[in-house]
Amino acid sequence: MSQRGLEALLRPKSIAVLGASDKPGRAGYLMMRNLLNGGFNGPVLPVTPAYRAVCGVLAYVDVASLPITPDLAILCTRAERNLALLEQLGERGCKTVIILSSHSQQFTELKACAQRYAMRLLGPNSLGILAPWQRLNASFSPVPILPGKLAFISQSAAVANTILDWAQQRSVGFSYFISLGDSLDIDVDDLLDFLARDSKTSAILLYLEHVSDARRFLSASRSASRNKPILVIKSGRSTQAQKLLNSPLSLDVAYDAAIQRAGLLRVQDTHELFSAVETLSHMHPLRGERLLIVSNGAAPAAMALDQLLARNGKLAALGEETQAALRAALPQSISISNPLDLHDDATPERYQSVLTSLLDSNDYDALLVIHAPSAAAHGTVTAERLIATMKGHSRGKRVTLLTNWCGEYSSQEARRLFTEAGIPTYRTPEGTVTAFMHMWNTAATKSS
Amino acid sequence: MSQRGLEALLRPKSIAVLGASDKPGRAGYLMMRNLLNGGFNGPVLPVTPAYRAVCGVLAYVDVASLPITPDLAILCTRAERNLALLEQLGERGCKTVIILSSHSQQFTELKACAQRYAMRLLGPNSLGILAPWQRLNASFSPVPILPGKLAFISQSAAVANTILDWAQQRSVGFSYFISLGDSLDIDVDDLLDFLARDSKTSAILLYLEHVSDARRFLSASRSASRNKPILVIKSGRSTQAQKLLNSPLSLDVAYDAAIQRAGLLRVQDTHELFSAVETLSHMHPLRGERLLIVSNGAAPAAMALDQLLARNGKLAALGEETQAALRAALPQSISISNPLDLHDDATPERYQSVLTSLLDSNDYDALLVIHAPSAAAHGTVTAERLIATMKGHSRGKRVTLLTNWCGEYSSQEARRLFTEAGIPTYRTPEGTVTAFMHMWNTAATKSS
Repeated sequence: MSQRGLEALLRPKSIAVLGASDKPGRAGYLMMRNLLNGGFNGPVLPVTPAYRAVCGVLAYVDVASLPITPDLAILCTRAERNLALLEQLGERGCKTVIILSSHSQQFTELKACAQRYAMRLLGPNSLGILAPWQRLNASFSPVPILPGKLAFISQSAAVANTILDWAQQRSVGFSYFISLGDSLDIDVDDLLDFLARDSKTSAILLYLEHVSDARRFLSASRSASRNKPILVIKSGRSTQAQKLLNSPLSLDVAYDAAIQRAGLLRVQDTHELFSAVETLSHMHPLRGERLLIVSNGAAPAAMALDQLLARNGKLAALGEETQAALRAALPQSISISNPLDLHDDATPERYQSVLTSLLDSNDYDALLVIHAPSAAAHGTVTAERLIATMKGHSRGKRVTLLTNWCGEYSSQEARRLFTEAGIPTYRTPEGTVTAFMHMWNTAATKSS
Repeated sequence: MSQRGLEALLRPKSIAVLGASDKPGRAGYLMMRNLLNGGFNGPVLPVTPAYRAVCGVLAYVDVASLPITPDLAILCTRAERNLALLEQLGERGCKTVIILSSHSQQFTELKACAQRYAMRLLGPNSLGILAPWQRLNASFSPVPILPGKLAFISQSAAVANTILDWAQQRSVGFSYFISLGDSLDIDVDDLLDFLARDSKTSAILLYLEHVSDARRFLSASRSASRNKPILVIKSGRSTQAQKLLNSPLSLDVAYDAAIQRAGLLRVQDTHELFSAVETLSHMHPLRGERLLIVSNGAAPAAMALDQLLARNGKLAALGEETQAALRAALPQSISISNPLDLHDDATPERYQSVLTSLLDSNDYDALLVIHAPSAAAHGTVTAERLIATMKGHSRGKRVTLLTNWCGEYSSQEARRLFTEAGIPTYRTPEGTVTAFMHMWNTAATKSS
């Protein structure tokens, strides 16, 4: 868990790209283009004998001729050249290197060379790093990325790309986005230590396939999870999947237990992961677990309720004052209870008056508003009303609101508006409750 | 399970709208507009003393003055008038009525009146019926609907609207879309009988909250499920949710057992439901359960594999011929196995040559192709290649292909293309496998 070199990796002031290229499609081209287009503030130094300039930047023929020693070097050349170049970087005094591509036969020699020069390695077979607050895109990511408060560490390039792609669509931002590759040197535990202390990072998300040093991993997780919620999605529940991932075969229940003991929260599939990211990136911390469910149909409310009870969640009990406020705001035909069924003729106005009545109540810790498409309540108009009500009310910033706009055709615009307004929004009642329970477990873990 | 009157309800030749209105927002306006805009072929007869014409159609002051006896009458008036109007419709000889809105105090009288005249009732509190092949939209649906081979029966208006909305976005079509409301008379079992014999319907989807007559329901399901796959999503797993739904309290496990015994397939949540609809609406029947998984990343393949094994699914074993074909088509670094990991540098060409090699193989029953966003394989281009390959190959129509394009930002267009081409496509590896297992269980149930 040495933090040596991580500052140079994660907050570099200068970057050399070895094997920089002007040929589209080449790794050395993609990396140069992403670094320059990303808007990185320090010098980006292409190293290649093949071009006088790459992407308009003066190139240096070799490591020795670099005018300064870069904080970070990125190897984009063919794998055969890795060892020789690493040697040169060591000589030059460079302390941190990202290796994009390598085969396992090289691993021992690369590691030995790095140790000889006290260099830190990320990769090989890493997609790279994105640190949006520093406008650093040292990656192959084909999609842009927004700054945010979530750090993501992935042991899979495919999962990293999927999350990036989804996040772009949902306007979810990141503090750091790190693809580990084969973790020859820098591993999850090093990064957890660093990110737990990073001021831009308020939650950490982990895609894990295997753990190389269980003791170090557990100790790093335990200490990091005291400061920040850490969510983990662990693949390879079956031994067949573990084989596919080249993971050491081990019992999934053992992982489960270890993950829990270390204070991490495990999510079970991709839908849960997306829900969790949505929550972590938008949500202020929960003070309690009492959920109030409001819906324009009994069925979606029942789905949410079933999921809540299956996960041992708690419904809020409404006090007399809140009940009276709701009774005054709603037609007589609606019975005041939790879940609160507004009926399928609920208009945007009815939603709005419920929210207004509830904003003053302390009877719940989080409010889940469900909307199923209906002729009476246009999805977008209803969303606009709720957002305006939250903004206009003095307690709007303190109330935890989760929204579930069901459907797809008529609800996309509403979901976009909620995201823009910083209000978490989900596709299904069950997913919303899952996200809420993650949120609550996070809060509970932290305070225990 | 009487089929009396169902023909008039589900294939009406003429429709009277009682309480037709020219005022936007009124039920009688929405119904007229949907019937006329839908393009229904028979006469639509507005009945109202308030207007000379509604939506441009000559109106009749009362039931008695209608020039013909309509097959179907729809009550859009205020609930107080239901009983008197039903009486008049009975006198007139009308055999089928949809009641949109009513309160439970009326139920006994309405039922008695209907029995007196041997009339069938749908509702009350039904959203109505859509039958796209007949261009019949006798509903409040705020979104359009496409013709297809899936029949949907819902006991919840909110769920019906959510499914309609989602289906519109995904270009999923329906043979019938029926909202039951309070099922005073016509219930699930009547409709199952009818739909099992309907030539346009190849699968039936049921959203169930409660069953009024368990014996009739089981007998109708058992007989219908012999002809067509029936999927059911049953809400109210917890007793609290059952209360919310006003269902008689009962053990969920009992439902589970009954549903299974009747040969129905149960889905557990909304994501599963969407996956199932996707499958049922696109898929030709499976002959076996051997799944072959192809992916450009080990992680999504592992997620799919974990899910397959958790559901007792089966991986295909590749014969020597298929292995040789794949070896010839792929770079040496790729190991030939199932799941087949094409690596994250897999280009659209690599995907294409794998599919080409596999189209001649009989070693699998379904092929799951996973794509995670990557700089090497543009999602849309890769999808276009696969679609063209399927179309161009003589066996393309006989091979069952399921696709999972991960991500959101870069994969939406690909998913749209697959849908257009009639190839089922899903958001997550786990959801795809869930859908596949439903498909297989459907095939297995049918043949057993």
